[in-house]
Amino acid sequence: MTDQTEHTCDVVVLGAGPVGENVADRTAAAGLSTVIVESELVGGECSYWACVPSKALLRPVLLRAEAARMPGVGSLLTGPADTAAVLAHRDRMVSDRDDSGQVAWLDSAGVALIRGRGRIDGPRRVTVETDDGEIRLTARHAVAVCTGSRAAVPQLPGIDSVRIWTSREATSAGKPPGRLVVVGGGVVATEMATAWRGLGSRVTVLVRGERLLPRLESFAADLVAERLREAGVDLRFGVTVRSVERAGGAGDRVDVTLGDGSHVITDELLFATGRAPRTDDIGLETVGLDPGRWIDTDDSYTATGVHGEWLYAVGDVNHRALLTHQGKYQARVAGAVIAARARGEAVDATAWGPHAGTADGVAVPQVVFTDPEIAAVGPTAEQAARAGLEVEAVDYDLGQVSGARQYDPGYRGRARMLVDPRRGVLVGATFAGPGVAELLHSATVAVAGEVPIDRLWHAVPAFPTISEIWLRLLETLRDERRAAGTA
Amino acid sequence: MTDQTEHTCDVVVLGAGPVGENVADRTAAAGLSTVIVESELVGGECSYWACVPSKALLRPVLLRAEAARMPGVGSLLTGPADTAAVLAHRDRMVSDRDDSGQVAWLDSAGVALIRGRGRIDGPRRVTVETDDGEIRLTARHAVAVCTGSRAAVPQLPGIDSVRIWTSREATSAGKPPGRLVVVGGGVVATEMATAWRGLGSRVTVLVRGERLLPRLESFAADLVAERLREAGVDLRFGVTVRSVERAGGAGDRVDVTLGDGSHVITDELLFATGRAPRTDDIGLETVGLDPGRWIDTDDSYTATGVHGEWLYAVGDVNHRALLTHQGKYQARVAGAVIAARARGEAVDATAWGPHAGTADGVAVPQVVFTDPEIAAVGPTAEQAARAGLEVEAVDYDLGQVSGARQYDPGYRGRARMLVDPRRGVLVGATFAGPGVAELLHSATVAVAGEVPIDRLWHAVPAFPTISEIWLRLLETLRDERRAAGTA
Repeated sequence: MTDQTEHTCDVVVLGAGPVGENVADRTAAAGLSTVIVESELVGGECSYWACVPSKALLRPVLLRAEAARMPGVGSLLTGPADTAAVLAHRDRMVSDRDDSGQVAWLDSAGVALIRGRGRIDGPRRVTVETDDGEIRLTARHAVAVCTGSRAAVPQLPGIDSVRIWTSREATSAGKPPGRLVVVGGGVVATEMATAWRGLGSRVTVLVRGERLLPRLESFAADLVAERLREAGVDLRFGVTVRSVERAGGAGDRVDVTLGDGSHVITDELLFATGRAPRTDDIGLETVGLDPGRWIDTDDSYTATGVHGEWLYAVGDVNHRALLTHQGKYQARVAGAVIAARARGEAVDATAWGPHAGTADGVAVPQVVFTDPEIAAVGPTAEQAARAGLEVEAVDYDLGQVSGARQYDPGYRGRARMLVDPRRGVLVGATFAGPGVAELLHSATVAVAGEVPIDRLWHAVPAFPTISEIWLRLLETLRDERRAAGTA
Repeated sequence: MTDQTEHTCDVVVLGAGPVGENVADRTAAAGLSTVIVESELVGGECSYWACVPSKALLRPVLLRAEAARMPGVGSLLTGPADTAAVLAHRDRMVSDRDDSGQVAWLDSAGVALIRGRGRIDGPRRVTVETDDGEIRLTARHAVAVCTGSRAAVPQLPGIDSVRIWTSREATSAGKPPGRLVVVGGGVVATEMATAWRGLGSRVTVLVRGERLLPRLESFAADLVAERLREAGVDLRFGVTVRSVERAGGAGDRVDVTLGDGSHVITDELLFATGRAPRTDDIGLETVGLDPGRWIDTDDSYTATGVHGEWLYAVGDVNHRALLTHQGKYQARVAGAVIAARARGEAVDATAWGPHAGTADGVAVPQVVFTDPEIAAVGPTAEQAARAGLEVEAVDYDLGQVSGARQYDPGYRGRARMLVDPRRGVLVGATFAGPGVAELLHSATVAVAGEVPIDRLWHAVPAFPTISEIWLRLLETLRDERRAAGTA
């Protein structure tokens, strides 16, 4: 028998990743007593097993590649990246997976932490299973589910007997495998292929489709494929995995049988084949929702199909945009919504208002830290066409921009902007090339700010920076419109 | 005796730097017969003796510094930058000072080039002194002065006998001097101190005032001073130069006598003490203007104090913003104005319209390529106060931004945004830190686009990038307003 205690508070947040932390920060700042429940580390997937360690592995690899291409610097490099130093750096960036700093932050924000597994137990109720017994919480105003997602692994013959890698193992491994096979072609697959190849592994990437990064512009994916191949990655398209088998115990080689019956032998096998919601064991069934499913919400992140306005789903778990920064944005909005309702105020559902996650639909930015980097916001040209949006697509070779050649004399890159000709605004942009990560926010501001194209001519990019791509894109739009007789 | 020929065209442009090229491009594209006159190289100061070669010297130095600070990469570097390789790279970036590529571009744009010295000779008339005689041009619609600026050197005892460096020699030198003394503390002084120190020179910087970069935020200047000192630069403030003397012929050491009577001995002496207009020998006196002065214009770049609307002054020469990119912006506006007047159309002087260089006054971006980089748009807090603008200044330590620490684990930097509380928009921003050059355009879009602060909350910065500084600044503004009871 375990002890039981009962507590009542204003808000319970399930999951203390960046999203849960931000919801709790906002509700606590609004004067609502807030309890956050976490079964693993405070800081969540992002801080320990995703964005932070992956970027810590990638940045030295990408910086070394940039340095290698630069006259007067490349010749100074004595070898490939110093793997042990990079891994030690990665461990420092994840605080050696010690969450005391994050716990202190929660404390300073006035948020109470309960370590344990939380499950919804009917409307406004959460039960937490802790080491010391069960804690039963009643939330006066809101329960916010911020449990995120985990790697989705296909049920293949033999997969349970092979200690495979998912994004967790791929970002936390203590040494580079001699051989690494990556299954998948999305962001995790391309980033981890880039990182471990740069740290010395022989890498094979098995992609079911015919291209990498299917949710991004294909010209960007092609540039990444080109550089991965030049770096020695064996990139195979149109390949499926039929079964897997580990020859002996852990540490022994893995035999991957492909759809055509051929075999690939590897030391580690990374499945980067998508994400699944962490909702299978959080009591959703007690409030009429399906466990194991993504949770639908409206633009205020209030769960739909639940009686009353008390259940919120924020971050990956609502499947609107599986990105840390977008989840934190959602958290700020959801926190404001919870606070408004607690004060008895009306929720302002106006697009772009404080209670609407409008950006989710139209202005989600993403940076892929590959060589070259890909930075994109809004739909791709193909996604826009599928959605029935009329857009003008304007392309320009980034390698023709003076500031890009200064950044990297062997610059290879390309940019595309998508313009809505009726509204006269930018609706999307993709930059693919070295050093474009920070350039993205200019496009995000233009899209979210609905800045008219005519006004963007007055936003002068500094010379000589890569940002001059803006001028080239605007000039190209002008000239193409003139040639088409539409200007 | 030389031959004389007479020509009539629509537009004459004096000076074929980036600014003149862009005016000519726009007027030629509008169907106006356009002649451009250049006495040196087509492409101008920027392409051969300023922005392009300086950035080509600086980027390898700054990239090496970034690489040196990165775990797993820094340990691979075997020494300081390979100076010979950097200088060869610089020469390639300036096309070995061969302007044939630029000449071909003018040709493709339909612009006629005359090589020679052009002088205004009364209203709408220009005389060009060429190797083959004099060409007398009559412009039906416009003469655009785009002759730019040159280094301003103080008249000090001995200066004419010393072959000093100006920005030209500092960006085109064939080898690093053993010792370099830089007089000045502005952009040229700090960038060239950074470059030549990185390429092996012993560098002393003599600054009359008490800080570097007086037109930028002082916190940014302090960061640059700190890194310069760490790199071994001897930075001296409150110092004036009384006289200079070269001991023997060229190649011998220079003796610099300071205001306090002390001496500094150097191999080369760079005066980076400001700019002067190149208007002393272009015939301004024939149309009632003063030779050797900056030319005043209105927002359409039409010269004031000249009868009729035919004389334009574009770029450095009008002293509105001495930056290549801003000059090119002015050129696009001026070209549109000239074309409109030639068609007999009204000039639309509305702020932010196609015929007004509105950004000059409020949204001029600038990047200083030092370690750390400084990227700024709009006024500084001090400039805003002097101009009587009410602004809220919001500061944040860039080193606390996760994406910044990923970029450079030893990140040192700081950002400031200036908000107009009545209009609810950003009016200025300064970012000082490694890798902020491309981040600037997000602020330029926000300022020129007058995007409301409330909307900027929906412009989500990608994690983990340096751009998350935007979120931190907005949060700080929110919290400071709450603490002040103004939100």
